[in-house]
Amino acid sequence: MAQKPSIPKGTRDFLPEVMVRRNYIFDTIKTVFKRFGFQPIETPSMENLSTLLGKYGDEGDKLLFRVLNSGETYLPIDVILDNFEDILDELKKGLIESRIVKDIKENGEYVFYDDGYTPKIEQFIREQIFEIIPKYQEKGLRYDLTVPFARFVTMYREQITFPFKRYQIQPVWRADRPQKGRYREFCQCDVDIIGSDSLLNEAELVQIVDEVFNALKIKVTLKINNRKVLAGIAEYIGKPDALVDITVAIDKLDKIGIEAVNAELAEKGLEQAAIDKLQPILFMKGDTREKLAQLKPLLDNEIGQKGIEELEILFDYIDNMELGITTELDLTLARGLNYYTGAIFEVKANDFPMGSISGGGRYDNLTGIFGLPNVSGVGISFGADRIYDVLEGLNLFPETMSESTKVIFLNFGKNEEKYCLKYLNQVRKHGINAEIYPDAAKIQKQMKYANQRAIPIVVIAGEQEVAEQKFTVKFMKEGTQTVVEANKLVETII
Amino acid sequence: MAQKPSIPKGTRDFLPEVMVRRNYIFDTIKTVFKRFGFQPIETPSMENLSTLLGKYGDEGDKLLFRVLNSGETYLPIDVILDNFEDILDELKKGLIESRIVKDIKENGEYVFYDDGYTPKIEQFIREQIFEIIPKYQEKGLRYDLTVPFARFVTMYREQITFPFKRYQIQPVWRADRPQKGRYREFCQCDVDIIGSDSLLNEAELVQIVDEVFNALKIKVTLKINNRKVLAGIAEYIGKPDALVDITVAIDKLDKIGIEAVNAELAEKGLEQAAIDKLQPILFMKGDTREKLAQLKPLLDNEIGQKGIEELEILFDYIDNMELGITTELDLTLARGLNYYTGAIFEVKANDFPMGSISGGGRYDNLTGIFGLPNVSGVGISFGADRIYDVLEGLNLFPETMSESTKVIFLNFGKNEEKYCLKYLNQVRKHGINAEIYPDAAKIQKQMKYANQRAIPIVVIAGEQEVAEQKFTVKFMKEGTQTVVEANKLVETII
Repeated sequence: MAQKPSIPKGTRDFLPEVMVRRNYIFDTIKTVFKRFGFQPIETPSMENLSTLLGKYGDEGDKLLFRVLNSGETYLPIDVILDNFEDILDELKKGLIESRIVKDIKENGEYVFYDDGYTPKIEQFIREQIFEIIPKYQEKGLRYDLTVPFARFVTMYREQITFPFKRYQIQPVWRADRPQKGRYREFCQCDVDIIGSDSLLNEAELVQIVDEVFNALKIKVTLKINNRKVLAGIAEYIGKPDALVDITVAIDKLDKIGIEAVNAELAEKGLEQAAIDKLQPILFMKGDTREKLAQLKPLLDNEIGQKGIEELEILFDYIDNMELGITTELDLTLARGLNYYTGAIFEVKANDFPMGSISGGGRYDNLTGIFGLPNVSGVGISFGADRIYDVLEGLNLFPETMSESTKVIFLNFGKNEEKYCLKYLNQVRKHGINAEIYPDAAKIQKQMKYANQRAIPIVVIAGEQEVAEQKFTVKFMKEGTQTVVEANKLVETII
Repeated sequence: MAQKPSIPKGTRDFLPEVMVRRNYIFDTIKTVFKRFGFQPIETPSMENLSTLLGKYGDEGDKLLFRVLNSGETYLPIDVILDNFEDILDELKKGLIESRIVKDIKENGEYVFYDDGYTPKIEQFIREQIFEIIPKYQEKGLRYDLTVPFARFVTMYREQITFPFKRYQIQPVWRADRPQKGRYREFCQCDVDIIGSDSLLNEAELVQIVDEVFNALKIKVTLKINNRKVLAGIAEYIGKPDALVDITVAIDKLDKIGIEAVNAELAEKGLEQAAIDKLQPILFMKGDTREKLAQLKPLLDNEIGQKGIEELEILFDYIDNMELGITTELDLTLARGLNYYTGAIFEVKANDFPMGSISGGGRYDNLTGIFGLPNVSGVGISFGADRIYDVLEGLNLFPETMSESTKVIFLNFGKNEEKYCLKYLNQVRKHGINAEIYPDAAKIQKQMKYANQRAIPIVVIAGEQEVAEQKFTVKFMKEGTQTVVEANKLVETII
């Protein structure tokens, strides 16, 4: 019986039509990254669990896909059972000596009751398993590109030229509950500069966002905030220690509304006075410069002032750029990730309902966990899957992709095939993607193939064309055809 | 304490210099694949274990990396222990009733001996584990691209246009013992045509091999054989059932020599007469056509004749091609994989000691295991890692790669930076990969950065250049420099 094939839940196969479109996105992003002087790196799909664990919070730890060690197909039960046999013998002896024998000798009968040994055996097995399992499960699949990048920078700090401008486009895996738009394997496109705290880096990332989305023809808004301003706000409302609670709550303003946000803040222990003091900031009116001007006198604390200064410098850069995208200060933008320490970015499509399609920020101590402290970096990540959905939803994919086959020669039999092969070769040498139908199948079948593959040009050479050293060229989209001399074929189809 | 970062044994990080070179290989291969009308697909990194198990032999099964189900961090010991508690109670009762009580009642004493219960408990746990574990380990990492491709073709047979010409470039994972040149994660580049038994497909693969290695400037020899000829030979020496043993043995001729091959054949049960009859074929003299001519009268069986005919047609195609590579019939070429049924290919570098750097063949029933019988295909796989080693060993990587940054602007301070940014933008708009040093660091430091990154052109604008609207342009390799008007910058560096 043949098995019915399937793939794991939350994973995807990509058919050619989808691949060509995905490659269009990746190629666009990569071209921009390179244009700005970023260099590619790649890291292994599997990282040591010790590298991954504890970096994404408890929730993240649970979402790691763990990989069994090489060649291990199950737990080393023989090891456990060897140990188990000894203790079982001992327990049996103890059990029997202490109770049964005594009972029978004294009363001629024994009472069987829960004697505490079963839990003891359970505990033993449990301990064994907890001790032994980790030794057989040392690897996990990459959860994001950020932690591996921090590990990479720390490991190769001697070989890397700082400031290090790298991009990385690779899949990541999360054992999340699969749902529409959320996959267990998906691709991240990350670009980071590490080892420089110049705000010019932030400005370059803004330009990268601009170039990518202009090239893809998606109208977007880039929202910008600064974690130091958020810290300044927390201090201003008298709750400097509640920064994380405040950012987590106000980050949801878009989704859950102000009442729910305030309720969450109250629940987290913010007094009504603090919550009241926060409201004018959340609903501050005006454009970016006006907001900064209102904020400046309010945040009379060092960190808040530093954050405002950083934003002013960044927006000075932006004012000098000719951007196709919209940029704006959004004081409610927080992004969950606690490692951000300066700028925060988030990109949304203007004309399509969709979460953020790109986001990032500055972090000051990402490599610290691996032993390389005080290295500041800033980066941004593009969500290829969501960008795909936006392009599809807005019908923005280009009609013809350079990836696809442009020309197909039909196959009329051995003699015609030989004639075609010579010219097929010429066509390919001119850099045109071209193929020949491999069998002299019915012409209808061959034309159907050309149609389904959406190949725009069909080249035909039957007996007559061969005799006359010509080709019939059909332009499929236009519905036209022409007969040309064989040696004019390339210029006809180029 | 910061943890010292490392990566799993047998896996690799790729630094930018290596990535750029790897991308050169992948891009070259991809360009050729597309030129010949092949379309990209991708499959998930994780496949269901049921898709993978049993497809690569017992050895292969052991080399699969198994992935625990979503969120599972260890075995479901609670499930096992719940079951265990019941049986333990029962066993204790049985043990006590049947032996101890009887012993004491009859003799006033009891004898404690191995009563068979411990093994019974062991067996129980073992069964539980064997029953339960597979439910928590349902996925494995892709071992190659062939089996996932067969699964893919079967699943999407209604959506695919046949003959289906696909290429796939993705990593695969094998829990092999890591050693030089053998990794646990490595990339395969596969190209296959499925759904056509025309030998023109084999001919196109030969051309693809030619184009790829010509583009990479590696001199190679493409060895060709045919599994039907091998079957014909097995029949000719009177051992049709020993085809697999014969192919496995003679495949090693290069490595272990004729005596060891003959010894292995004898060990597998081949009589001396059969071995003797095989020798002239293994050491047949002459070029491809001469060998085919000698073989034709020898192999007086249907399958052998069919194989010779296929080879003749393929070499007819080859004779009509202008190939840069060498092709030859190699009757000792067998390749281990049992699914081949027709042509077999293997590519070796002429000037560098290295195993095969590419290989493939025709298979007639790969999708049969998934329920789609009688679909013939032919394909070839390029070994990117080995090709990398050959290119490096022969010093064949191009000196400049289009991936890298071509121009860097030095940073002399805010005013100069602003001046530079305008022209940096222009340079990028002309498709030139360019960057600016993000800080006004010491010029020495900036020049060191440019040097280490091997950026060929350094653009300098100090106070004077800004005042005169000029740039100083340094050509690093040539060691020359020139001062140009700002508006001539692009044409100077393009």
